[in-house]
Amino acid sequence: MTKPAITYRLIKKEKHTGARLGEIITPHGTFPTPMFMPVGTQASVKAMSPEELKEMGAGIILSNTYHLWLRPGEDLVEEAGGLHKFMNWDQGILTDSGGFQVFSLAELRNITEEGVHFRNHMSGEKLFLSPEKAIGIENALGADIMMSFDECPPFFESYSYIKKSVERTSRWAERGLKAHKNPETQALFGIVQGGGHQELRQQSAKDLVSLDFPGYSIGGLSVGESKAEMNHVLEFTTPLLPENKPRYLMGVGSPDALIDGAIRGIDMFDCVLPTRIARNGTCMTSHGRLVVKNAQFARDFSPLDDNCNCYTCRNYTRAYIRHLLKTEEILGLRLTSYHNLYFLLNLMKQVRQAIMDDNLLDFKENFFEEYGFNKKNARNF
Amino acid sequence: MTKPAITYRLIKKEKHTGARLGEIITPHGTFPTPMFMPVGTQASVKAMSPEELKEMGAGIILSNTYHLWLRPGEDLVEEAGGLHKFMNWDQGILTDSGGFQVFSLAELRNITEEGVHFRNHMSGEKLFLSPEKAIGIENALGADIMMSFDECPPFFESYSYIKKSVERTSRWAERGLKAHKNPETQALFGIVQGGGHQELRQQSAKDLVSLDFPGYSIGGLSVGESKAEMNHVLEFTTPLLPENKPRYLMGVGSPDALIDGAIRGIDMFDCVLPTRIARNGTCMTSHGRLVVKNAQFARDFSPLDDNCNCYTCRNYTRAYIRHLLKTEEILGLRLTSYHNLYFLLNLMKQVRQAIMDDNLLDFKENFFEEYGFNKKNARNF
Repeated sequence: MTKPAITYRLIKKEKHTGARLGEIITPHGTFPTPMFMPVGTQASVKAMSPEELKEMGAGIILSNTYHLWLRPGEDLVEEAGGLHKFMNWDQGILTDSGGFQVFSLAELRNITEEGVHFRNHMSGEKLFLSPEKAIGIENALGADIMMSFDECPPFFESYSYIKKSVERTSRWAERGLKAHKNPETQALFGIVQGGGHQELRQQSAKDLVSLDFPGYSIGGLSVGESKAEMNHVLEFTTPLLPENKPRYLMGVGSPDALIDGAIRGIDMFDCVLPTRIARNGTCMTSHGRLVVKNAQFARDFSPLDDNCNCYTCRNYTRAYIRHLLKTEEILGLRLTSYHNLYFLLNLMKQVRQAIMDDNLLDFKENFFEEYGFNKKNARNF
Repeated sequence: MTKPAITYRLIKKEKHTGARLGEIITPHGTFPTPMFMPVGTQASVKAMSPEELKEMGAGIILSNTYHLWLRPGEDLVEEAGGLHKFMNWDQGILTDSGGFQVFSLAELRNITEEGVHFRNHMSGEKLFLSPEKAIGIENALGADIMMSFDECPPFFESYSYIKKSVERTSRWAERGLKAHKNPETQALFGIVQGGGHQELRQQSAKDLVSLDFPGYSIGGLSVGESKAEMNHVLEFTTPLLPENKPRYLMGVGSPDALIDGAIRGIDMFDCVLPTRIARNGTCMTSHGRLVVKNAQFARDFSPLDDNCNCYTCRNYTRAYIRHLLKTEEILGLRLTSYHNLYFLLNLMKQVRQAIMDDNLLDFKENFFEEYGFNKKNARNF
């Protein structure tokens, strides 16, 4: 039996919740969990340099197989020496399988047992992805953690459709496992699907656990369902997963969902949210959302967040950042992106400390109150 | 008599040319000359952070009075504690007077003895700038070096028009000197105009030198005339300026023009060229221009310039930078901007060494040959 590419080490369980403190040892360094992973869709975390990501404590980042397959092509990345070398990032990388993008971006898709036929979302060109093809691309990219090729059906799709989809996703997972060429240097995760149905999540988890993946993802959430529905699914899904393997909740990045996910035993998260809203001038702060482009901040010479110790908050004012965004200066996007990523990475650091101190529920209560998540009609992020 | 805000110290004259090695001591640090100044039009050198600019050796940057007057307004910058504090830059800053922008950007201008009436190039709003108004804005911004409000007539304008313009610019310079409120902390330069006419350059220089400015700029060049014409004007203009004051050639930034300017006794240069062409994917290298977006570099895993030691060239390949530019990733603009600015700052460092070694003409010959400036139909940059 080959030694898996990554190791999950459980350090401590929180006394009053399902949360757990741990660490994941990868071929490119070790990172603590629960952890938020910044997203570098096209082999770059938007507006950030690798040094800045390290400075803020990002031990692992995510990149998207679908995008890199189309541009610049996985063969070019392989020729460059793999994704780490190509993008000058020597710490952990996780790649998704392209499955989610096929279902969210591509057009005219046609799903068969073999795989998915669809059109390139930019050029319209006809394309095909299968478990074998997706895993082959991920092998060429060379990330430390890879995702199985899955179908991500809409949360509110019918029971009968999701059941068929889950069964196919399990068969695809097994085919991907067989196609995987580098199990000693790249850890392939299985993705638990099943929408909002407990029975189907159980079936999916059981199928995948029997294949003994080195880690498990939970997919098909944060796709339109309520936070309460997402939390409910997590409550009955994480207990189905082995304690000695990492659990990754895909595509989730709002501060409340990170805390709620950690409480329910999630170890890893990713989302484009912090960098996407940053480029639009929306910042996460310890006192809630701040739309720094608003006129009220024109002469506000305080930092984005008076409780934040990031590069942006140590050196720049709301007035200056607003000026940069209004005049479309690139530095503005850099400063807000840096701050939002730091905010989530620092939030996870606080969550890990709260697990250590067995006071995660108190931490959540205080954080939600200060951020405004307890207010009626609270915004999502 | 008040002590001027800056001091120019002449260290050494080159044996075979008019070039000179020196340094300028400002209220915000000392920088060596000849020096290229990166341009931060809107209180930010496009795509760069202050730390990056320091790392590459930029001891002084330029910012534009016209742009800052319109956005965010000089009163806001003053309220922030001045431009240095507003933009988190503790080294030298030079502001122009807005004169050039009024003539290059604004519409429907009407020049009178009092000043210039024109329209905001974005909103169409009616505006007015005079020597007193421009100097007042520059005083509020608080740069270490300020420019007089001048008219910048086209190089090929008639002798009689340029003569009237030069005389008015001299009167405006005197009015600006009188309006200047902070001569002990901000050094106001006079701007020598006169197009291509030796007689008018002489008249302009004589008028301004009689007003005893702490430094002199040469304006109205690099506006459509040939390199030979520009060099010719410099040859008869710099000798008209006092040896104990700095000489600044405005708006010039192509590598050949920097060397040719230094040879003719220029101490300071500025231009948007390196950052502007960088955002378009054009890089300056020791082997000439490189359009890194071109298909031929798709699988080129060498650095932009194999002779360059900048952050970009130490860490990234042409293939990766091309990918970032093709996918419109902000990091691509950061990497090319960094490289081009470093290239010019490093070029000036080499020029200073060549002055020290009395071999500037040999240095020029080698540089021009390698860059391709000696070729027929050589491109401008």
